[in-house]
Order: sequence, then C-alpha cells, then structure tokens
Amino acid sequence: MKNISRDAIDKMEKIERLNLINSCTGYKSANLLATKSVDGKSNVAIFSSITHLGSSPALIGFIMRPTTVPRDTYKNIKETGYFTVNHITVDMIADAHHTSANYELGISEFDKTNLEEEYKNGIETPFVKGSPVQLYCKYVNEYYIKENDTIHLIASIENLFFEEELVHKDGWLQIDRGNVVAINGLDGYCLPKLVDRFQYARKEIPSTSFSKK
Amino acid sequence: MKNISRDAIDKMEKIERLNLINSCTGYKSANLLATKSVDGKSNVAIFSSITHLGSSPALIGFIMRPTTVPRDTYKNIKETGYFTVNHITVDMIADAHHTSANYELGISEFDKTNLEEEYKNGIETPFVKGSPVQLYCKYVNEYYIKENDTIHLIASIENLFFEEELVHKDGWLQIDRGNVVAINGLDGYCLPKLVDRFQYARKEIPSTSFSKK
Repeated sequence: MKNISRDAIDKMEKIERLNLINSCTGYKSANLLATKSVDGKSNVAIFSSITHLGSSPALIGFIMRPTTVPRDTYKNIKETGYFTVNHITVDMIADAHHTSANYELGISEFDKTNLEEEYKNGIETPFVKGSPVQLYCKYVNEYYIKENDTIHLIASIENLFFEEELVHKDGWLQIDRGNVVAINGLDGYCLPKLVDRFQYARKEIPSTSFSKK
Repeated sequence: MKNISRDAIDKMEKIERLNLINSCTGYKSANLLATKSVDGKSNVAIFSSITHLGSSPALIGFIMRPTTVPRDTYKNIKETGYFTVNHITVDMIADAHHTSANYELGISEFDKTNLEEEYKNGIETPFVKGSPVQLYCKYVNEYYIKENDTIHLIASIENLFFEEELVHKDGWLQIDRGNVVAINGLDGYCLPKLVDRFQYARKEIPSTSFSKK
C-alpha cells in the first residue's frame, strides 16, 4: 500500500491535498441546501457533510466555513432560521455540482442551473423539485470548531417529505430506489445500489441479512 | 409525496423512527474504527458518521454517544490518543455490521468476527486487514453537543495508507475501485459506482465532466 505521512500531506501541493483528504474518509451524502433571504431571494448550494445526529429529537448536523462560499446559505439560515435538505438524484449531478461556483452574494443558483424551486405545505423556504427525499429543517445551534475555523451547525427536522416507493414497513427509506447519489471526494458522483440489509446485531448469533430471516 | 411532521416523528414507534431518521439524510460513510486499550486489548467498531472536516490541517470528525455502545472505542481513544479508520469493503459487511453487537467491555470484536488485525510502520494501534483505505488518527478535541448528549470528536490524520490502484494523478482516491461500501440508514449496505467526475465549477461556464475536457 502507498503510505503518506502527515508531514508529506502538509507539504503537498494544495489541489492534490484537497483531492486526497476529501476522498479518504469514504462516501459522503449528496444534498442541496435551499434557503430564502429575508427579502425573498432563493438560494441553493451543494453540501456533502450532512450527517445524522440523533433520532429523538430528530437532529442533523453539517459543517460549514461561514467566511467563504456558500455565504448566502449561512446568512439566510441565520436570518430566517430555516433551510431545506434535498437529496441529489443522478440526473441532477451536473446542475448540483454547478451550485458550487463562486456566484456573487444574492445571485440565485436556481436562475443559473436547471434546478427548480418547489413550494408546498405553506412553507416559505424552497425545496428542490424532483428530489425524492426532502427535509424542512430549523436552525437549533452551532458549535465553532476552533481547530480549523469551521462551524458545526445543528438543526432539527421539522417536516420530512419522501417518495412513497422508497419507504419500507419498518420506516427505512431505501434511497437507491430514488437514484440518490453519494459523493467521492470533491467532485466524484457515484450511484450506490443496495447489496444487503442486516438485522440488529446480537452478540450470540452471527449477523444475518433481512432476506434470510 | 408522503409527508411526516415533526410531531408525527416524535410520536412514532421507536424502531420506525430510528429507521426513518437514520435513512433520511442520504448515504453515510462506512468505516471500522480500531483501537487498542492501554493494557493491550484490541477493539473494532463500525461507524457511519466519519466526515471530512478540513484538508489543511487534515482533520476528520465523527459523532459518538460516549455513555452507550461503543464505549471501548471512546475509552481507548481517550486513554491512548489514537485510533484507525478503515474503509469497509463489500466482502466485509456481515462482519462489520456484527461489530455493533453489544459485547461486554474489553471483548475484542476481532475475536468474534472474521475481521483481522494488521500492524505496520511501528504503529501500535491495529488496522483492519484488507481495508483499501486506512487512516491513522490522533485525538485533537471534542465538542459536547448538548442538544442530544453526543460528542463531536475531532482528530487529525497522522498517516494515510491506500491501495495504489485507487489514486489518480491529482490525488483523488477513486474508492469504487476498492469496492468500498456506503451505508443507508442503520443497516443497509450499498455498493456505489462512479457515474461522473466534474471539474471545478466556474460561474461563467456550465459544469463539465473530466471525461469531456
């Protein structure tokens, strides 16, 4: 195996380091965060750090660097308190990736891509049309990570929308049925397919798949 | 689309809520965290919350609930300062899932599964043999998330190992070449395949894939 020390990582050329370190932790979630400014301008930006934080209460977290792109997302979340999380499907990847371009503050990526806004249930924050899983989230708190000047933003799930064909009887959303992608590194978009699902692991018996019970 | 409010989520039966909320944020990284106790006992446990935090310095983060399973992992990290992150391949999924069983403190999951320890470069912390990407990490800090009694643990990458055939000239690790899996929810294991890779997004031109440049 190839081996790279911390010292060698630190001395690497910037783009190579960005590619390597962004791809070495495994697959990432692929989501579009949509917001609206207080004066009614929409915004949408791609995020790959949305993580499940807890189920009761239903909480998610993600990492952002507020002083750089995407500043609109952070500004709008802080001002309005709300945002939506929209799963990216395989047919959206070029447009989703393009939301990472460095547009001026106040420019809506909805106007610059084929992504379309969707409004429903009286919610003023836009969703992304065609996304098979959509979360309406409320800002709860943020933790400043001093080690690299980022923010871990915590939000609650206030409303959850999903395509009916994704859900199993036990609540599980099988997201490959919606052609949802995962991200590898900064710019690699991958389509996962379910291999197996396992039952709750018990120490006295080997782990068995659902299909074999 | 099916719509579930926060109120309905809160009132849901526990297992259904766990399945739904764990699967609604998208795909998760699939990693085995291996540690060693101060008295030399190995431990390995599955984690799906490892997230890229920054590249310079190279930092990762993950979420844990220290008062419940997996307690050995947290205890060992706090006592020794080190752990390894090992990508899970498709042939490891049954064993990887089984590390989530509630074993007594001090029991090594390496003894209870087909997962094998690997030692190299004079590092005392075990790696998981056969994992195509392996990170040797050092504890840096932790942030207590009061909203749901979890910890966001921050670590630096001290040493990075990967199979040579994964890496591209620009540093990017194409992890589908290593048959690395992603996790859907609590117990769904998926195999992603690369669809496309895009160039750095620039506002004035549509996003183009690497293959088309």
